[in-house]
Amino acid sequence: MKAVGLIVEYNPFHNGHYYHLQASREAADADVVICVMSGYFLQRGEPALLPRRERTEMALQSGADLVVELPYIFSSQHAEWFARGAVSILNHLGVDTVSFGSEHGRIEPFLNLLDFLQSRRTEYGHHIKEYSSLGYSFPKAASLAFQHMAPGKHLPDLSQPNNILGYFYTKAVNELGSSMSLQTIARVTAGYHDHNLTEADISSATSIRRRLTEDGGTPEAVEQTLPAPVYRRLKNYLDSGSSFYEWEKYFSYLQAKALTLPAALLGEMYEAEEGLHHRMQSVMKRNSTFHEFMHAFKTKRYTWTRLQRFATQVLTGTSKAEAAAAMETGEADHIRLLGMNKNGRAYLNTIKKHVDIPMISSLPKDKTPQQKLDEKAAAAYYLPLPAAERTIRWRREYEEPPLFFED
Amino acid sequence: MKAVGLIVEYNPFHNGHYYHLQASREAADADVVICVMSGYFLQRGEPALLPRRERTEMALQSGADLVVELPYIFSSQHAEWFARGAVSILNHLGVDTVSFGSEHGRIEPFLNLLDFLQSRRTEYGHHIKEYSSLGYSFPKAASLAFQHMAPGKHLPDLSQPNNILGYFYTKAVNELGSSMSLQTIARVTAGYHDHNLTEADISSATSIRRRLTEDGGTPEAVEQTLPAPVYRRLKNYLDSGSSFYEWEKYFSYLQAKALTLPAALLGEMYEAEEGLHHRMQSVMKRNSTFHEFMHAFKTKRYTWTRLQRFATQVLTGTSKAEAAAAMETGEADHIRLLGMNKNGRAYLNTIKKHVDIPMISSLPKDKTPQQKLDEKAAAAYYLPLPAAERTIRWRREYEEPPLFFED
Repeated sequence: MKAVGLIVEYNPFHNGHYYHLQASREAADADVVICVMSGYFLQRGEPALLPRRERTEMALQSGADLVVELPYIFSSQHAEWFARGAVSILNHLGVDTVSFGSEHGRIEPFLNLLDFLQSRRTEYGHHIKEYSSLGYSFPKAASLAFQHMAPGKHLPDLSQPNNILGYFYTKAVNELGSSMSLQTIARVTAGYHDHNLTEADISSATSIRRRLTEDGGTPEAVEQTLPAPVYRRLKNYLDSGSSFYEWEKYFSYLQAKALTLPAALLGEMYEAEEGLHHRMQSVMKRNSTFHEFMHAFKTKRYTWTRLQRFATQVLTGTSKAEAAAAMETGEADHIRLLGMNKNGRAYLNTIKKHVDIPMISSLPKDKTPQQKLDEKAAAAYYLPLPAAERTIRWRREYEEPPLFFED
Repeated sequence: MKAVGLIVEYNPFHNGHYYHLQASREAADADVVICVMSGYFLQRGEPALLPRRERTEMALQSGADLVVELPYIFSSQHAEWFARGAVSILNHLGVDTVSFGSEHGRIEPFLNLLDFLQSRRTEYGHHIKEYSSLGYSFPKAASLAFQHMAPGKHLPDLSQPNNILGYFYTKAVNELGSSMSLQTIARVTAGYHDHNLTEADISSATSIRRRLTEDGGTPEAVEQTLPAPVYRRLKNYLDSGSSFYEWEKYFSYLQAKALTLPAALLGEMYEAEEGLHHRMQSVMKRNSTFHEFMHAFKTKRYTWTRLQRFATQVLTGTSKAEAAAAMETGEADHIRLLGMNKNGRAYLNTIKKHVDIPMISSLPKDKTPQQKLDEKAAAAYYLPLPAAERTIRWRREYEEPPLFFED
């Protein structure tokens, strides 16, 4: 069976994702679509709007055959580690093609970019260092270094965030010595009038989240931008009394951590660099919302996303030592199955003898370094729930078998 | 001016406290009554039902002339350290007499007990060690060792908790080489029919707290056991929408700490001994209330109080290193003024030149080791409030001048 692999957050699943999933299957001529999906906390350093289980269900409703988890240590990281972890899982799962979205939909420019930057690695690193020393954040310094080297229009512009993930997927496939091929599908955007999607059917996940969570926001406001089964699942989730997971709901827990841990121990948290933890403590007490706090915390030297990721590490209590242990091999140390349909199960049966890292359906007693962090991420994620519900959710997350989707 | 000093929690202030305060003043023939009061967290390892400010006001309404804070490092400790910290403050404040409650109201037995145990210190220590090694908790082992040495009826029985604090006050006065004298006032108890108090007027603080906080509990249920101004203040507190501070409200914060901190860092918390932190982590996730958690956490080897104190250290993030720094001198490193009346202010004016540790009205920028812990205790204490109120309370606790009570 031929498999295509996608790397996703689905926060939440929308028409653009649906298009990408179907187009990826078609372009790769694949029998099975495998999604590596972030669990609880995402690349921008924020909680997923909906729990892992609900997002898995939405993906299966929309054409995914198999959904596996991207472990926490990769899901809340900058692009290079995020890509590295996800690609390593697809590689272990015997995927034929990794498919990602881009503006133009051509893979050659990414392969050329990899050649270009690898041949001029020293020069690139030198320029990044130079710009960093002027006080720019790392992503900004990397972008300026790239512009300085003026690779011209034939290569993807790494000052565009959308191209950065594509580049790191390409790099990870190369570094892992994987035989997987890469393909990229042109994103459908507002203004893109093909595939029976009108402008009104397509919104970015950011805009959908905003419309769902702002004051007076309702699922109806985004109905047109979601596949019908996803919309029904979302409605059902909210109608049953559940609500979205957002940073504001975690703010008191972040305060509890930051204001009571001794500075020396807060400094042991992953991503606490250059006194960031002292800065966090000093501004933490004066603000009543997470958003206000972040504005006070923000500096030119660090991006908003980088600081949110640090806050996430504090919230989940991820120490430098734990992160180092979880990142030691540079690859996923297990594959957690979240959900599948018959087709996905058939695929698993064909490959499972060849997968050389543990595939798990629930958390084992003896946990790998990455599983330990996943367990803590789940503990942190459900804190805003009432105590009794929290206990139930925790137990379910650890013990529940993968979702089987009858299609 | 002659001063009598009381060591109190006032959780909450009740008729028994009122009687003790007035009788102490009278017996010591004192011009001024000084109370050293625990701030946020108490000796049994639990939050005070009402904030420091409100409890200060109730004490001043009821005859106290000056209220100062017992720093956190002493207020949430076993009896010996609790007594040591409090007595050191009274000593610095030039108090003439330390007055505490006891069943019988005679001081000689306590002085004799001190002589007895000091002369047989090695033997006592040896027996405690022996009983401890049989798996008894420390207080139980100390009590059994004491019974084993059979001091007879002429000495206070140290297997009675009520006598333990009195003994350690006596010991602290002796060890500090203080010139303060000691007196003890017989407690008024249910069944004690003097001083215009009937049986119905007297309840223990424990029973009052239970009647206030149980389902359907109202202030009216305890009205008769409180001085009238205290009752009015309590009513007013509740009528304005405030509520009591209880462990259950902190449970999710305790879970957040215990479930996300790496075991190695949780083990750095003060009172994490013999793998207690591992035990805390392993039982924490299965329980929906603090009370359920404590039942699962309890072992024969540790008292409920000892385990609650450990939970308090985790909640306030007090590390072994911070506790060691705060306990280094074995005395209070500052005196924080919480409230006074004219009489108390006049007393302060007569002694302030002779007080050789800092007397503070608000938290300074450069904090002593004990002040750092007080700041964290306040941060933890107000966590259950809504975010905006929490921010206001934090600022007020640090910046607000002492309460001045016009009587």
